[in-house]
Amino acid sequence: MGIFLTANSWIITFFFFESFFAILAQYTASYTDSSDDETSPRDKQQKNSKGNGDFCIKNIKQADFGRREIEIAEQEMPALMALRKRAQGEKPLAGAKVVGCTHITAQTAVLMETLSALGAQCRWAACNIYSTQNEVAAALAEGGFSVFAWKGESEDDFWWCIDRCVNVEGWQPNMILDDGGDLTHWIYKKYPNMFKKIKGIVEESVTGVHRLYQLSKAGKLCVPAMNVNDSVTKQKFDNLYCCRESILDGLKRTTDVMFGGKQVVVCGYGEVGKGCCAALKAMGSIVYVTEIDPICALQACMDGFRLVKLNEVIRQVDIVITCTGNKNVVVREYLDRMKNGCIVCNMGHSNTEIDVASLRTPELTWERVRSQVDHVIWPDGKRIVLLAEGRLLNLSCSTVPTFVLSITATTQALALIELYNAPEGRYKQDVYLLPKKMDEYVASLHLPTFDAHLTELTDEQAKYLGLNKNGPFKPNYYR
Amino acid sequence: MGIFLTANSWIITFFFFESFFAILAQYTASYTDSSDDETSPRDKQQKNSKGNGDFCIKNIKQADFGRREIEIAEQEMPALMALRKRAQGEKPLAGAKVVGCTHITAQTAVLMETLSALGAQCRWAACNIYSTQNEVAAALAEGGFSVFAWKGESEDDFWWCIDRCVNVEGWQPNMILDDGGDLTHWIYKKYPNMFKKIKGIVEESVTGVHRLYQLSKAGKLCVPAMNVNDSVTKQKFDNLYCCRESILDGLKRTTDVMFGGKQVVVCGYGEVGKGCCAALKAMGSIVYVTEIDPICALQACMDGFRLVKLNEVIRQVDIVITCTGNKNVVVREYLDRMKNGCIVCNMGHSNTEIDVASLRTPELTWERVRSQVDHVIWPDGKRIVLLAEGRLLNLSCSTVPTFVLSITATTQALALIELYNAPEGRYKQDVYLLPKKMDEYVASLHLPTFDAHLTELTDEQAKYLGLNKNGPFKPNYYR
Amino acid sequence: MGIFLTANSWIITFFFFESFFAILAQYTASYTDSSDDETSPRDKQQKNSKGNGDFCIKNIKQADFGRREIEIAEQEMPALMALRKRAQGEKPLAGAKVVGCTHITAQTAVLMETLSALGAQCRWAACNIYSTQNEVAAALAEGGFSVFAWKGESEDDFWWCIDRCVNVEGWQPNMILDDGGDLTHWIYKKYPNMFKKIKGIVEESVTGVHRLYQLSKAGKLCVPAMNVNDSVTKQKFDNLYCCRESILDGLKRTTDVMFGGKQVVVCGYGEVGKGCCAALKAMGSIVYVTEIDPICALQACMDGFRLVKLNEVIRQVDIVITCTGNKNVVVREYLDRMKNGCIVCNMGHSNTEIDVASLRTPELTWERVRSQVDHVIWPDGKRIVLLAEGRLLNLSCSTVPTFVLSITATTQALALIELYNAPEGRYKQDVYLLPKKMDEYVASLHLPTFDAHLTELTDEQAKYLGLNKNGPFKPNYYR
Amino acid sequence: MGIFLTANSWIITFFFFESFFAILAQYTASYTDSSDDETSPRDKQQKNSKGNGDFCIKNIKQADFGRREIEIAEQEMPALMALRKRAQGEKPLAGAKVVGCTHITAQTAVLMETLSALGAQCRWAACNIYSTQNEVAAALAEGGFSVFAWKGESEDDFWWCIDRCVNVEGWQPNMILDDGGDLTHWIYKKYPNMFKKIKGIVEESVTGVHRLYQLSKAGKLCVPAMNVNDSVTKQKFDNLYCCRESILDGLKRTTDVMFGGKQVVVCGYGEVGKGCCAALKAMGSIVYVTEIDPICALQACMDGFRLVKLNEVIRQVDIVITCTGNKNVVVREYLDRMKNGCIVCNMGHSNTEIDVASLRTPELTWERVRSQVDHVIWPDGKRIVLLAEGRLLNLSCSTVPTFVLSITATTQALALIELYNAPEGRYKQDVYLLPKKMDEYVASLHLPTFDAHLTELTDEQAKYLGLNKNGPFKPNYYR
Repeated sequence: MGIFLTANSWIITFFFFESFFAILAQYTASYTDSSDDETSPRDKQQKNSKGNGDFCIKNIKQADFGRREIEIAEQEMPALMALRKRAQGEKPLAGAKVVGCTHITAQTAVLMETLSALGAQCRWAACNIYSTQNEVAAALAEGGFSVFAWKGESEDDFWWCIDRCVNVEGWQPNMILDDGGDLTHWIYKKYPNMFKKIKGIVEESVTGVHRLYQLSKAGKLCVPAMNVNDSVTKQKFDNLYCCRESILDGLKRTTDVMFGGKQVVVCGYGEVGKGCCAALKAMGSIVYVTEIDPICALQACMDGFRLVKLNEVIRQVDIVITCTGNKNVVVREYLDRMKNGCIVCNMGHSNTEIDVASLRTPELTWERVRSQVDHVIWPDGKRIVLLAEGRLLNLSCSTVPTFVLSITATTQALALIELYNAPEGRYKQDVYLLPKKMDEYVASLHLPTFDAHLTELTDEQAKYLGLNKNGPFKPNYYR
Repeated sequence: MGIFLTANSWIITFFFFESFFAILAQYTASYTDSSDDETSPRDKQQKNSKGNGDFCIKNIKQADFGRREIEIAEQEMPALMALRKRAQGEKPLAGAKVVGCTHITAQTAVLMETLSALGAQCRWAACNIYSTQNEVAAALAEGGFSVFAWKGESEDDFWWCIDRCVNVEGWQPNMILDDGGDLTHWIYKKYPNMFKKIKGIVEESVTGVHRLYQLSKAGKLCVPAMNVNDSVTKQKFDNLYCCRESILDGLKRTTDVMFGGKQVVVCGYGEVGKGCCAALKAMGSIVYVTEIDPICALQACMDGFRLVKLNEVIRQVDIVITCTGNKNVVVREYLDRMKNGCIVCNMGHSNTEIDVASLRTPELTWERVRSQVDHVIWPDGKRIVLLAEGRLLNLSCSTVPTFVLSITATTQALALIELYNAPEGRYKQDVYLLPKKMDEYVASLHLPTFDAHLTELTDEQAKYLGLNKNGPFKPNYYR
Repeated sequence: MGIFLTANSWIITFFFFESFFAILAQYTASYTDSSDDETSPRDKQQKNSKGNGDFCIKNIKQADFGRREIEIAEQEMPALMALRKRAQGEKPLAGAKVVGCTHITAQTAVLMETLSALGAQCRWAACNIYSTQNEVAAALAEGGFSVFAWKGESEDDFWWCIDRCVNVEGWQPNMILDDGGDLTHWIYKKYPNMFKKIKGIVEESVTGVHRLYQLSKAGKLCVPAMNVNDSVTKQKFDNLYCCRESILDGLKRTTDVMFGGKQVVVCGYGEVGKGCCAALKAMGSIVYVTEIDPICALQACMDGFRLVKLNEVIRQVDIVITCTGNKNVVVREYLDRMKNGCIVCNMGHSNTEIDVASLRTPELTWERVRSQVDHVIWPDGKRIVLLAEGRLLNLSCSTVPTFVLSITATTQALALIELYNAPEGRYKQDVYLLPKKMDEYVASLHLPTFDAHLTELTDEQAKYLGLNKNGPFKPNYYR
Repeated sequence: MGIFLTANSWIITFFFFESFFAILAQYTASYTDSSDDETSPRDKQQKNSKGNGDFCIKNIKQADFGRREIEIAEQEMPALMALRKRAQGEKPLAGAKVVGCTHITAQTAVLMETLSALGAQCRWAACNIYSTQNEVAAALAEGGFSVFAWKGESEDDFWWCIDRCVNVEGWQPNMILDDGGDLTHWIYKKYPNMFKKIKGIVEESVTGVHRLYQLSKAGKLCVPAMNVNDSVTKQKFDNLYCCRESILDGLKRTTDVMFGGKQVVVCGYGEVGKGCCAALKAMGSIVYVTEIDPICALQACMDGFRLVKLNEVIRQVDIVITCTGNKNVVVREYLDRMKNGCIVCNMGHSNTEIDVASLRTPELTWERVRSQVDHVIWPDGKRIVLLAEGRLLNLSCSTVPTFVLSITATTQALALIELYNAPEGRYKQDVYLLPKKMDEYVASLHLPTFDAHLTELTDEQAKYLGLNKNGPFKPNYYR
């Protein structure tokens, strides 16, 4: 995979494969049709009801099921629906030819149909071989989208689908929407000339953003790129608010543990740790925190958590949660000293926070007791309960709320609009954060969900504060 | 079913059937053996490894799987394990012959093996035709217990199993442990003379307790009965603390709703309502409360909830939760006015709080979107999301924590010990609550789980307060 | 003082003297007129503007100031004002002759004027030699009430004032409203025949209620008495909700301590302890709890507090709070081991929870650093910060919210109405709690303060629950 | 006052005068000696016990009282004490000649004596004519410090004192520690040449920092300046954590309001608003929020607050709190519509958030009911309760915790050390924030107060994260 490939990025990619599989599996289960033939979609000739066959999916007959899924998702993505309404007048993406590579789910479908309503033409592939909702892909194909994706692609299928989005007679994409960087990588490798007409890349994932910064540092980034992952709104929602709920959900679904009275240690008190601690405290757990940064440590103190080193409490806690973004936070030495029945899980960004590898030794017995739940058993009979084999609990064992996906999708749409319409020179061959004002706009589009009413500055107040009445209201660095 | 039968009690019984089925189904799924033959257990001859065949279960070969389940449950039921330890010296149930009729699950198995360790002989049937964990029944049979139960009994099987527990040559039970009152009813109906040797009944369920009070009022109760359901410890845990967690769990598992920012109305501010409100407030929901009792209403105010009538907020809320114990709290008129996507569910004690029947009209379309989740769709396209068809959310869509089951089982064991050992005349032919002191003892047995250290009164302090140093510490009515 | 006198009750009375002095002092300060002469009110001849002189107070000229205080209090006592409105039609106290002995404050004045509006005649003395607001007494006298009270009475004055309320030509009281039992005691001792015409006693204080129960046990109670102190509404508000706020207020006013990150141990997890713990946890303190009762202990665990013995944490905590109702909870041994700067205070009912006497030894130095704040200094320089000399922090160092006083006053008024109008035989010569229904009525009168809207049962629902639509909604023992 | 003077900055300065007066008044009250003569300190000749007379204060005889205050403060400023300990080896301020102008309180004395222990020589004046604690000034003078300050200076005295710190034979300051910018201004105006030897300015206040940025913009700043006000640690503690406590304290001390059940609107959801909302929600208030920034607005939603416009709730709320930093947020129109008894106060940075001027009209009556509490009365009798005349509630009506002052003082000390020791060229003639690493160091010095134990990165982890093991752990912009 040429320029992108580092050992590290592969690991992360692999992990995303795994975790999204878990999430999506539960949704798609009900639609699995046992009579589905085993013919590869690449070998089938399908057409939608209008006679269009420019797509490659599992089964066009599932379109009705998929449409229902999309309609349900629409109800929870009001911001995109609001963008569509505005687009009745102006078409900010008129002329845009977007090639996309993301998870293909009902939420993505709402995004794609919004881009279309805004004037764009789209061709789309899946960024993950397992995560495609086949019936949604069918509904998109039926609706006229050129989709190339199905659940259970081979690696060869994966690149073939991407290629079919990019390389087709009479189609020259001018925008890229990517999630993970594989599409971007493919164009770099196979069709570098295509970048001459491309106005920009919008990238969603940590991995993809990392790749873009590497390109940029190496002086090889040849179009502007928008880092959607680090926008304020997305960060706050993905981390603090989403984790506040998913820690409870993930633990309950896997272990049915009662939180009241449990002693818990949370390693790391960044946004994720703050969310986990707040939730568990509210449910009656006694929470300890470990930190390396004295400022976050002082915040933990002021928020009412005892700040400890892991070895001070490891023998007494019922649950250990890592949220550090670091590696080897919970090592074998600590695992050895945990009490019988201790639950261990990871909410941080990588799967190396818990040294799971150190548990793969002959004297320990692993017992899979439920999906995503292993008992690791010591010779003396002590068991610890390891969740998701140390991978991200919130992705593996709970669901990502549609509301969070809505914020991401809206941010992606606005980033496309911004890059596509930006006057010459506003963006150079670099990686950008979404301008503060657009971040604020994403937020404002989600306020009606809560029947929330924003106050407007008077002219006098705006002048006093030195602000434009329409924002931005804070400096770019404000968090 | 003679004397017991009222329309009301049947409804409740039916509902329990339904809900426990849902709970247990998820656990037992993994052990379903597709090669299981379809022969009725009543037609099979099975013996355990010691040659004993005095039981009737699905498949004795599953005993090892069941033993593992029991071992896991033992770890979370420390109070029963502590009782076993104490029983190494004295056997407070020596000579007791207990006939039982309860759900047959791993937790019940821990109870039964504890009763055995305390000196009792046991014969056991299931109180529900769906809820038996076959592999646990197998482990019990292998361990020498006379168990008569399997998942999927017919009604005829149900009464046959009960009869086999009661009516067997050379066996005269002297204690009854019942859950629902069916066993008690059967003995009343078929073997009334048996009560001459019976020292008492311990009853667990709302329904069964209700039946006992009716018998008592009618002057027909011929032995003392212990109402385990209304003990302080059980009530607080079943209601306030358990519901504080299960409301979140039940809503997440069924709808994946994000709680932050959601507007919720909770009908009823008793213990259950208090638990639900506290949890949702902590997760960032905006919670409104309805109440009929001005004292509970004032508590809601002081706890920070706006007290409203349902019609004031019904148009704006995202979630409606009933916790009243009343009927027709959410009637069609309110359902008509809810906004699109509103989630409706019931945490109260009966399935009549939401007038679900009123939704079974031709102009409304029902769509089952997941297990326990229906969309009810109005002609204009509005949908409400009805959970568990209005039955109890916490039983249908979340799990009961083992910790709560542990409190119940311990209370049952102590109630048996108390009734069996009580001196002549302490209990008459009436329904009793567990003495405060034993309630406190149940609590104290669960404190080590939390590494909690109780303070002891000094002699001087006990004298000052006029208390015995070992309790009871509060009057019986204290809650 | 004959029959009442026990060493214990005196101590409590003494303590009330002290604490209310502290509270009232801060209000009355601003009205202290340096030109006030030092003549005893008993030696002055004063008349109000209508020529009436049947009162004895400090200075009738302060009436205008007092009226303003009363008007402010009226705004926060809506329930009494609602009772007045209803009294425009019927006068439930017509013919009642109430002799009262309570703190004489603006809130009491609102109660007295309400009783008057309900038809009662009143004569009133102070139950405390320090707590009278002179200007309020003046306003009452100006309004025609026979008030006998001033701030700074001698003990002789105290009994003289009471006597003047009881023993006056042409006046035979038929109701007693007492706070502390001194008035009741005086009548028992001096005018026992008066009880023949008295319909009942309403008693407010712990001490007074204790005395009444002693009388009742001794068979000497000769009229019905209503125990206002233990009504549900009052208990909940005085204890849980009021203490939740006053623990923070009392600590801040005395020590300006920052709560965030502080380690606190709360001794006792009854209603008061629950309130203190909830408040401190919310402010970011780390809270430990000690308990003797395993049920309350388990509640502490489930609410997220580590349950410890005092000696486990005494060296590390920053604040020690007693809420036990017990004595010698914090003894010298613990005080010796506290760390430098540790704050020690009492929120329980008596002033013996902290063994303050044990600190009066020669090697320790006491230093008064502010009002109600002493540093006790060990020979090695260690200081502990003792608040209110171990007396009740919430009475000594914070204020009682008018809202709580309003609930108490309303309960008193309703208790008078109930006893005065009860049909022959409803009440015997015993001590009663306010009937549940009236307790609920008190609560309902306070709901409009919060713009709270109660739901009414439908006929069908009331029938289903077996309740009267107007309550009572719960059994008497329900809390 | 030449270059600095803008109408705006004067107003802020005036307000600080007022508010600190309120705070300090309560502490100094007890030491007021009625026998204090009225002679101006400038006319007195005083010497300390060592014969040194290079100071000008109220009364050197109060030194012992002051020493006690300083000792108490030392106990709560562990970070400065830790710096002193380290200074036993190295003297990072050896040779530093610091001229200071701050509030002269016990906490400042701890700072000054720490600077001295670090090797600095100091001369000090007060930055406020009311805020000096005379006995602390005496203790400093007795300890050999050249202090020029007393409570109740005239404006002429104020500048005279400053001049005496700067302009004395044989003294050339090389560091400035300022609070408000008046000292800096005086040197600019009178002794501009002095800046040649000055290594830098450390400025604490919003006003002073504002002035420095204006100088910098105008190209007139001739030495590096450190903006202590905006350091992360200080901001978080001054705003979020401190306000979380002071909103409750300020409201209680002024109004004794009960928070439970009260409806409150908080204008602005920045750090201050977040602190206020969290505290009031925890105390059982129902809180509404207004915001102009959609991102903060969405945070309010997710934290469980209804986002409204002021006019939607102004009629129903019991308390209005401004935290916007804006002006005319609560204008007369809203004040007219508030309900009777509504409390109005300001927690934001300026005294213009509430348009108090609009209430100074003939038809409204003002009534001062307590210190800092006015009733403003409408012709129809409606009153609103205005606190601190719209100035900052937390400064006027509560106290600033020593812990927060400790963080500020430590930051000041470290800023002096950094500027004094920075190699040539690290800092230019500009305004700087404290480097992240030193901010982290301030935090780490305060962790022992909470017995908090920081985790250290392993070498492997530091490498993985690309961090130095000793920090900084976050980028400079991280908050």
